[in-house]
Amino acid sequence: MRIAVLGVGLIGGSIGLAARRRLHAEVVGFDPDQSNLASALKLETIDRTAGSVADAVADAELVFCAAPVRALGDLIAAALDASGADTAVTDVGSTKRELMAAVAGHTAASRYVGGHPLAGAETAGVANARDDLFDGARWYLTPEPGCDGLLYDRVQRVVADLGARPQALDAEAHDRMMATVSHLPHVIANVLVAQAATALGEDAERLPEVGPSFRDTTRVAGANPAIWTDIFTANGDAVATEIDHVVERLGAAAALIREGNPASIAAWQRQAGESRRALVQSKLGAGALREVRLSVSNKPGTVAEIALALGRAGVNIEDMALYPAQDMRTGAISLWVAGDQAAQQAARVAGDLGHTVTLVGAQS
Amino acid sequence: MRIAVLGVGLIGGSIGLAARRRLHAEVVGFDPDQSNLASALKLETIDRTAGSVADAVADAELVFCAAPVRALGDLIAAALDASGADTAVTDVGSTKRELMAAVAGHTAASRYVGGHPLAGAETAGVANARDDLFDGARWYLTPEPGCDGLLYDRVQRVVADLGARPQALDAEAHDRMMATVSHLPHVIANVLVAQAATALGEDAERLPEVGPSFRDTTRVAGANPAIWTDIFTANGDAVATEIDHVVERLGAAAALIREGNPASIAAWQRQAGESRRALVQSKLGAGALREVRLSVSNKPGTVAEIALALGRAGVNIEDMALYPAQDMRTGAISLWVAGDQAAQQAARVAGDLGHTVTLVGAQS
Repeated sequence: MRIAVLGVGLIGGSIGLAARRRLHAEVVGFDPDQSNLASALKLETIDRTAGSVADAVADAELVFCAAPVRALGDLIAAALDASGADTAVTDVGSTKRELMAAVAGHTAASRYVGGHPLAGAETAGVANARDDLFDGARWYLTPEPGCDGLLYDRVQRVVADLGARPQALDAEAHDRMMATVSHLPHVIANVLVAQAATALGEDAERLPEVGPSFRDTTRVAGANPAIWTDIFTANGDAVATEIDHVVERLGAAAALIREGNPASIAAWQRQAGESRRALVQSKLGAGALREVRLSVSNKPGTVAEIALALGRAGVNIEDMALYPAQDMRTGAISLWVAGDQAAQQAARVAGDLGHTVTLVGAQS
Repeated sequence: MRIAVLGVGLIGGSIGLAARRRLHAEVVGFDPDQSNLASALKLETIDRTAGSVADAVADAELVFCAAPVRALGDLIAAALDASGADTAVTDVGSTKRELMAAVAGHTAASRYVGGHPLAGAETAGVANARDDLFDGARWYLTPEPGCDGLLYDRVQRVVADLGARPQALDAEAHDRMMATVSHLPHVIANVLVAQAATALGEDAERLPEVGPSFRDTTRVAGANPAIWTDIFTANGDAVATEIDHVVERLGAAAALIREGNPASIAAWQRQAGESRRALVQSKLGAGALREVRLSVSNKPGTVAEIALALGRAGVNIEDMALYPAQDMRTGAISLWVAGDQAAQQAARVAGDLGHTVTLVGAQS
């Protein structure tokens, strides 16, 4: 099988590696950045380089377009233009509706299938490419109704062979969903830091130590401006609609808090806890995530000691948050592990190390 | 010196322990919950128990009221009623304006100083009490203008002797500040999970894997309903005002995104990043926090190996976030360490272990 990869960064490079090693495919790479292309070849993410899109897609059975979101429309059109009637073209862009609309007018649009792997946003660049990047990852495919069935099947089969779990979804639902769980948190983080900067900037001497809730809520504020400008423009409608809904909900929250009825506020707070647990814990194979909270000293080595003991006991840490006290010497650690059994084992292990352990929301 | 502690939970118990061990004070404890009081005595957080508020405060030079926020008004009044002209009374409630107003009418209001230590919210109960809980922690004091100067001085001296860093602030500024950096993130987390639950609940089969930004932003959603109902009612005005401002800012963000001008969106995104760095990194003695990002395998032992190696190298991890890939076997780890030197050392250590390392926002 011959596969073309147009754009060899983290995602394109990882597709190339996985396709070469797992599908034993021949992978041809193209990138407008020559040094990027040379690195991709040197790292063996591709078998050979192509000098143009046309050169890359010639005789390819499948073309992956892995450029930044803004460049995808033109790149997909070029790939469709230059490839034959049996070539499937897909992409890896994180927003889909605008792109599907742009491609819809192409005479060969039926050979295109939109795609979006949920993987690899944290570290960019072909140097970080891995053949297991997509293992177990959801990979959305957004075929249009007129899409060629055989070519769609080829795309989803290759995606599965790369290690991912393909799922078809219409482009609008995809973008709305991404707006809710990914793009909106970024908007809110931005707004919150701006507000805090204004509120506190007036008297810098009074700037308080910022608590863990603020740090968590604003961690993604100002993330990679190039990438996020693309996302906010490409998915603008869905993101703006999500913001409208949040504004409504915040208005209701302000009214609830101004009214000051403790029973209503408590019910709202409880409901939020239940919603979060349902959302975050869903679909984790090994069991719902359980939080194990420890009071610890935060000196060098403490985190290691705990993590090492858990590793020895075979308990995997799915997520972790450190809440250092102001002196940075003591604090609390929250660990999330999958399933009740792992939680109880983690509690036992940490307890044996002398830490005070709380199993949050224990049901037993 | 004799100190009375009214309410012996995590905070009251830790005050008792630190006062006994560090100030060699005689600590008398009272708690309406008899088993709590017995535990406090057994854990040596107090020297003796009192049968009533009056019994506890008799001859005390300083009284700490450490009950839940809603109970503090009555408790402070009772302590002022029962104590002599040379007894200072303070509290540890996390909101101050409403409380100051309630106490202001008391004939002995000049003996009261409002207080709020920024410590210990993560783990409740006297079993978690520690004599070093307040080490290096900010402890806000909110004296009224009519406050007795000698008694104020006693409160702030004892607070410093407990290990904390006292700072005077007027009650309204305190509450506004807490609303911005602590209470507002909780409101937003609640709203966000409610919105996601509605948006996604309609088609549970399509529930996506929830990304790290969503998890971070909503981590505190639905936190302890009893405590947060108290906070939202006691600090309702300030919190509602903060929400109003966020609503305005979100409206502006929605307009910006609908307008779709890439340059404006990029500028907004960059500004958010700068604001966050300024807010979160301020006032950390050892240097601004630096983020070190690693691509790792997420098998048991990986976190330990990294943390242990850093510990050996004398690098302390101030904060940590794990971003597991969907398969929970690979992913990325972000570490925050204090100062450029520590960041570079951390990068070296992690690199030696074979991980791909990115120093985020490196300036060198």
